[in-house]
Amino acid sequence: MALSQPEEIGVGTMRCRCGVDVHAHVIPAEFPAYLGSAAPAGWPSMAPADACHRHVMIDGKNYRTVSDKCWTTARRLADFEDMGLALQAISPMPELLSYWLPAAAAAQLVRYLNEQIAGMVNESAGQLIGLGAVPLQDMDLAIRELQYLKATPGFAGVEIGSNINGVAVGDPRLDPFFEACEALDMAVFVHALRPAGMDRLVGPPPLQQVLAYPTDVGLAAASVLTSHLITRRPKLRLAFSHGGGTLAMLLPRLEQAMSVFPAVKDCVGHSPTAQARALFYDALVFDTPTLQHLVSTFGESQLMLGTDYPFNFHDHRPVARIQDAGFAPPVQDQLLQANARRFLGLPSSPSPASTGITT
Amino acid sequence: MALSQPEEIGVGTMRCRCGVDVHAHVIPAEFPAYLGSAAPAGWPSMAPADACHRHVMIDGKNYRTVSDKCWTTARRLADFEDMGLALQAISPMPELLSYWLPAAAAAQLVRYLNEQIAGMVNESAGQLIGLGAVPLQDMDLAIRELQYLKATPGFAGVEIGSNINGVAVGDPRLDPFFEACEALDMAVFVHALRPAGMDRLVGPPPLQQVLAYPTDVGLAAASVLTSHLITRRPKLRLAFSHGGGTLAMLLPRLEQAMSVFPAVKDCVGHSPTAQARALFYDALVFDTPTLQHLVSTFGESQLMLGTDYPFNFHDHRPVARIQDAGFAPPVQDQLLQANARRFLGLPSSPSPASTGITT
Repeated sequence: MALSQPEEIGVGTMRCRCGVDVHAHVIPAEFPAYLGSAAPAGWPSMAPADACHRHVMIDGKNYRTVSDKCWTTARRLADFEDMGLALQAISPMPELLSYWLPAAAAAQLVRYLNEQIAGMVNESAGQLIGLGAVPLQDMDLAIRELQYLKATPGFAGVEIGSNINGVAVGDPRLDPFFEACEALDMAVFVHALRPAGMDRLVGPPPLQQVLAYPTDVGLAAASVLTSHLITRRPKLRLAFSHGGGTLAMLLPRLEQAMSVFPAVKDCVGHSPTAQARALFYDALVFDTPTLQHLVSTFGESQLMLGTDYPFNFHDHRPVARIQDAGFAPPVQDQLLQANARRFLGLPSSPSPASTGITT
Repeated sequence: MALSQPEEIGVGTMRCRCGVDVHAHVIPAEFPAYLGSAAPAGWPSMAPADACHRHVMIDGKNYRTVSDKCWTTARRLADFEDMGLALQAISPMPELLSYWLPAAAAAQLVRYLNEQIAGMVNESAGQLIGLGAVPLQDMDLAIRELQYLKATPGFAGVEIGSNINGVAVGDPRLDPFFEACEALDMAVFVHALRPAGMDRLVGPPPLQQVLAYPTDVGLAAASVLTSHLITRRPKLRLAFSHGGGTLAMLLPRLEQAMSVFPAVKDCVGHSPTAQARALFYDALVFDTPTLQHLVSTFGESQLMLGTDYPFNFHDHRPVARIQDAGFAPPVQDQLLQANARRFLGLPSSPSPASTGITT
């Protein structure tokens, strides 16, 4: 994949089109009919909105109104130049992961999603790569779908929820899945989903995404540290959405607890801070000092560009945000693309990205 | 209250004994008998342990084994020199706030706690000040207890939980209480209690304190921002334990959401970041880069020394930790004592503290 030439934006700053976005979502244009006799509760469908939009309907309600950028590859790729992207990993809208459906129904739905993702990757001329879905409410079916994804061109790994019907990502019950991911060399992107803490929110429904999502991601990442998953499976490539959510604020307290509570030390075993520096995180935090703190906390090699494209809460200028954050050019290059390529199991970029050069 | 002379610790560093600790706890030596016919579930009692320790028993189980530093003023004050403290605000062990007891029973218990705190303050020669308890499950009784605390020598304000039986601190149902706190000029210290997110923890029971406590505090502080409590009650002095918990990681996303979701903008009204810089936080985060990030995020005027003394997860070197964090001397002075005095409604220190002077 050749890098395009740097693009000039504003005065005196060269912008690359080199970014690798690990956090972007897909919704298919239509959902399939359920193969059984009657679709279970939670089976999604599409309803028309205006020319460019549709309503995702779940249980008779409009779950979200979304644009055709969710399913039309050309519309998506047309935004790459403005955003500074060379490559984007696409994963299902998390609510479509369907862990709450009967396993056989979920297996049908996620297979359809995975086929749609494969199709978009195939028509992207190397600018998209897939993170598929697996029905994690059934371990056998999940591993079977993981094997399907591994055998299907276009997938670098999977997206999973920050919890599986309330079970935290670090729970030992999920270990067979991570064992398979490690064995198959498939990346795992953990995205917030049906979060804890909803009863603590005071305000309108979007606060679920705004406040409870990063809370659940932080607890998910912490559960991976307390179960020392990454020390048990050192080749596993595991990333967390939204900058790891609240993890950065939990981590020093967890580290300190190792020397205070013998039960915590016995359980965690290895330094939580060292473990956290072996996980990946997207940089989707909308704030330069916070991004700098995350890079300092988790390491220059662990943060990756992420956008949440094409939803309304996405970052419209992800490359510029990283280039303007004051990192040295080699670190910029890591955050813009090199770390993401490593997470996704892709070869290094053919040449170092041209980043942040003042003309 | 005169400051003691700086004490020399280690090589080349002068330590003050000027710190004002806003986060320290009290447990009485004994609990009273319930005044009614049969004590309700959750009524605490004491059981002997070794010479210096007792077990706090709740519903027949050992809730926590604690030392006599919890109730013996002289034992507590004897630690002030090593910790570098001039003044400590003492509040009940949060589990004793008893929001889940019948209101009349809770009123009896917290009045007893408040009397014990007043007694400790009285025998401390000006080195302790009280943050009392109120039975917030009953608004009338809570405001009546607040008025009692205001009229009783030794109290600067109250400690409340990060949620009241699941109701977040920013919930409008609690507004009459905050109106009374503002009117009576009583400080409010919000401490983690019975937190959200417990079902996301993978590991031993202390993870409640380690991970779920800061999670609940972060959500509590966020609820205060989304209900713009501090803009509605600008004279209210409101502080959050554990560095505001996870708030610092939630805040940029909440700020960004103001320009994405009209419902969030309509609800929150005022910049969450600006609001957050009008709240107080303790500095109990056990990590210098995190403390620096909090000071940068919330402002030099809003962080205060906090220890969680005398529990086993307390900070043994709170003053040294702040003095060694690289802040300019005036900022050190703010964090060590000036901000806390402002939060507690006390006069400024008679002279600027001598902090971090290299001999």
